[in-house]
Amino acid sequence: MTRLEIFGVDGLPEIADGDDIAELVHDAAARQGAPLVDGDVVVVTSKIVSKAEGCAVELDDVDPSAFAVSWGTQWDKDPRVIEVVLRESRRVVRQIGPVLITETRHGFVCANSGVDQSSSGAEGRVLVLPADPDASARRIRTRLAELGVEVAVVVSDTFGRPWREGQTDIAIGVAGIAPLYSYIGQHDPHGHEFRVQELCVVDELAAAAELVKGNTSRVPVAVVRGHAWTPDDAASMAPVIRDSSRDLFR
Amino acid sequence: MTRLEIFGVDGLPEIADGDDIAELVHDAAARQGAPLVDGDVVVVTSKIVSKAEGCAVELDDVDPSAFAVSWGTQWDKDPRVIEVVLRESRRVVRQIGPVLITETRHGFVCANSGVDQSSSGAEGRVLVLPADPDASARRIRTRLAELGVEVAVVVSDTFGRPWREGQTDIAIGVAGIAPLYSYIGQHDPHGHEFRVQELCVVDELAAAAELVKGNTSRVPVAVVRGHAWTPDDAASMAPVIRDSSRDLFR
Repeated sequence: MTRLEIFGVDGLPEIADGDDIAELVHDAAARQGAPLVDGDVVVVTSKIVSKAEGCAVELDDVDPSAFAVSWGTQWDKDPRVIEVVLRESRRVVRQIGPVLITETRHGFVCANSGVDQSSSGAEGRVLVLPADPDASARRIRTRLAELGVEVAVVVSDTFGRPWREGQTDIAIGVAGIAPLYSYIGQHDPHGHEFRVQELCVVDELAAAAELVKGNTSRVPVAVVRGHAWTPDDAASMAPVIRDSSRDLFR
Repeated sequence: MTRLEIFGVDGLPEIADGDDIAELVHDAAARQGAPLVDGDVVVVTSKIVSKAEGCAVELDDVDPSAFAVSWGTQWDKDPRVIEVVLRESRRVVRQIGPVLITETRHGFVCANSGVDQSSSGAEGRVLVLPADPDASARRIRTRLAELGVEVAVVVSDTFGRPWREGQTDIAIGVAGIAPLYSYIGQHDPHGHEFRVQELCVVDELAAAAELVKGNTSRVPVAVVRGHAWTPDDAASMAPVIRDSSRDLFR
């Protein structure tokens, strides 16, 4: 039978600008008696990647546009935060009441460009998403390889979605593992050829990892052990980002 | 550390109308040396639930409307299948080119009302989603309790989503486990109160389960072991289905 094991990495310190996440995770996993091994998928919450990469914005340094001031005032939101949300976006997808759904510079569609007011560790500061989450994932994977383990890395975030209440964790950056697994051309047990099905396994890995993380505890990293993946050094999230020409909801 | 184990249930027979899925899963898990235990979450692919509940539609019995004939002919699709898709829907959300995104009678938004042409086991027949997936999940949970184990049950299906390529497994029916976990009112490690975050844990459980299922093998059931849940006999998918008044994409 196919079997996976998923566990959180406990005992990580509060992450600060310049920290080596790979080494911290490597050491914390060993300390809890569950050292990383070849083949693991390491799922890292984007907010600690943002912190390690210095992706905090001091709101006192932000000069909001007239648009941000007007809309923020109307909906009782800090215009400086709105300004950061707009800067982090390349397009506003929906702006209805106090809700702002944007397409980020990376091409992800989410609320408020992924700008996080609650995790920055200080009032007057917000966290933005890593500039290039695939590159972040690659750096962590490369560093872990230097430390002796060949793993895949997924950088995850918590997104809402249309039509369904409740958020789920999804992937925003990958390294080593192809994000999509295609059944196209394969056959089901009845001999029918799959013509369309392609699964976003990295989103499923991110969702699975969230189950052991928990947002109120300080467990921003989880390990999925037992998932079969073929090392792919060129892997990126690009194949997951649907081109707007193929998109019915943008 | 928080730790989950996820494994597929091998050796299930081809499911037919009237089969007792609970008993088959219970016995197959025991046969593979991994009997179900109290607290497990059993994730069952909806297509075997549909088969056990006789949710197959013989296309020869379907009389397509003029609309279905016209649109099916235009896009080279079987008008009888289109007719079944429309019957299973209460609203067409998008109809662009050959793509039909509908809201099902249950309130789920997906391609083709979840009508499945490839898994029916016969040409000239399609499978539709279970009429009441929460009730299906409850029956399986109740029957497993009779067989001696107190488990939660999630009925899953494979859905696409806007903005992102690749499908993922999500929940369409639940029993015993509340679908949403709310952090609202709790505090993060910095003492900030969560004001909005609510996670759809049953979608994350469904996604995690997919990782061990695989659609080309015959593993339509997976077990998630180690997930903490509070038994809730009144649980249903209702809280997940976003009311259209709150929806920006319908």
